[in-house]
Amino acid sequence: MNSDELKQRLGRRAVDDFVRGGMRVGLGTGSTAVWAVRCVGEKLRAGELEHLACVVTSSQTELECEQLGIPIYSLNHTHVGGKLDVTIDGADEIEPSGNLCKGGGGALALEKVVAYNSKRVVILAEERKYVARLGKSFPITVEVLRQARATVTRAVEAMGASASLRMAERKIGPTITDNGNILLDLTFEAAFDAGWLERELNAIPGVVENGLFTGGHYTVYLAKPDGSLRVLE
Amino acid sequence: MNSDELKQRLGRRAVDDFVRGGMRVGLGTGSTAVWAVRCVGEKLRAGELEHLACVVTSSQTELECEQLGIPIYSLNHTHVGGKLDVTIDGADEIEPSGNLCKGGGGALALEKVVAYNSKRVVILAEERKYVARLGKSFPITVEVLRQARATVTRAVEAMGASASLRMAERKIGPTITDNGNILLDLTFEAAFDAGWLERELNAIPGVVENGLFTGGHYTVYLAKPDGSLRVLE
Repeated sequence: MNSDELKQRLGRRAVDDFVRGGMRVGLGTGSTAVWAVRCVGEKLRAGELEHLACVVTSSQTELECEQLGIPIYSLNHTHVGGKLDVTIDGADEIEPSGNLCKGGGGALALEKVVAYNSKRVVILAEERKYVARLGKSFPITVEVLRQARATVTRAVEAMGASASLRMAERKIGPTITDNGNILLDLTFEAAFDAGWLERELNAIPGVVENGLFTGGHYTVYLAKPDGSLRVLE
Repeated sequence: MNSDELKQRLGRRAVDDFVRGGMRVGLGTGSTAVWAVRCVGEKLRAGELEHLACVVTSSQTELECEQLGIPIYSLNHTHVGGKLDVTIDGADEIEPSGNLCKGGGGALALEKVVAYNSKRVVILAEERKYVARLGKSFPITVEVLRQARATVTRAVEAMGASASLRMAERKIGPTITDNGNILLDLTFEAAFDAGWLERELNAIPGVVENGLFTGGHYTVYLAKPDGSLRVLE
């Protein structure tokens, strides 16, 4: 199966397994999660999911919901209150401990707010994203206030990282996030403890959020090239 | 002396004592720090401070510099690099340990980036702002992504705080910061360790920054109602 077919299978399977009428559901961002969003849209149109309250994790997902006719709620909606029942999202990398990194799509801040406020998080990925250790082939992304670009760069360099300002395509200059901030992609020479690093990065003044997700236990669906799925719980 | 006279005296004294030509200087925000900014402007016009590189901590300070003809650099300017020589700012409250809280002016995020990247920070305040313990008469402010208002409120409530959304004047709805975010003002019933709380708040997804400043040793100038100054180092 090609990559799009694998992603579609992952999205459909996650919605079939975990999304029921009446639930409060977080909808993830990226080329894999979007298939779950489309599946939710289909089921809504078919009348199979009543009274669903969907919360988006980015402006990409928001656009998709608008096109599909999926009503959007926010975590601030009173009736959404408490934790979401389930969130379905992708990841850049997943390590055996269950920790993830996200940020390739630049939506890490809202993705983390939604994931950390969900009872269950289902992560969809192709098998190749399951790696021995985070941060080796994908960078760790930090979202940073624009005025703190240089100071945050120096702070992470002092922690042993090299930082690369993410540059935009389809506009000149740096990529600007949905929140109006810039992104630094960090590469670490040495191994790190992901839970420790997540907190240390957030303690740097000017860092809005970082792409390490270590705060929960995730249900991970991995798709192999032959189309078979492996579930890690 | 009235409050404005005290603040003017504080601002002038700090600039006289600490700002020299050739320095990289952080200019604070608020009704006290603005007097230091004005004093810098006067000295620049009089030719007393050559080759000064000033970095602002808010759009208020930026406006003031524009009116006074003070050139503005950012922490990203290559030649500003490294730490600023001195930053002069105000505070909402100062406790004997030297920890501060800021945030009444809503500029806490950039104020913290600048303060934490300065070799020396001079804090100017009226004596009444020197208190036994932070957070009793002034709230602890957190800057929060808009979509995380409810989830951050629940997270801080679980830490024993009550949270109040800061509402704007001169516009309807909540106050929006220079970074496009909202502010929650937190009141804690119980005493807290400020250094611990500063890190815990920043670890909550959706929190951009908080108003606790515990990361440095500050030079504090306090003004008594009779106009005399007390210096804490």
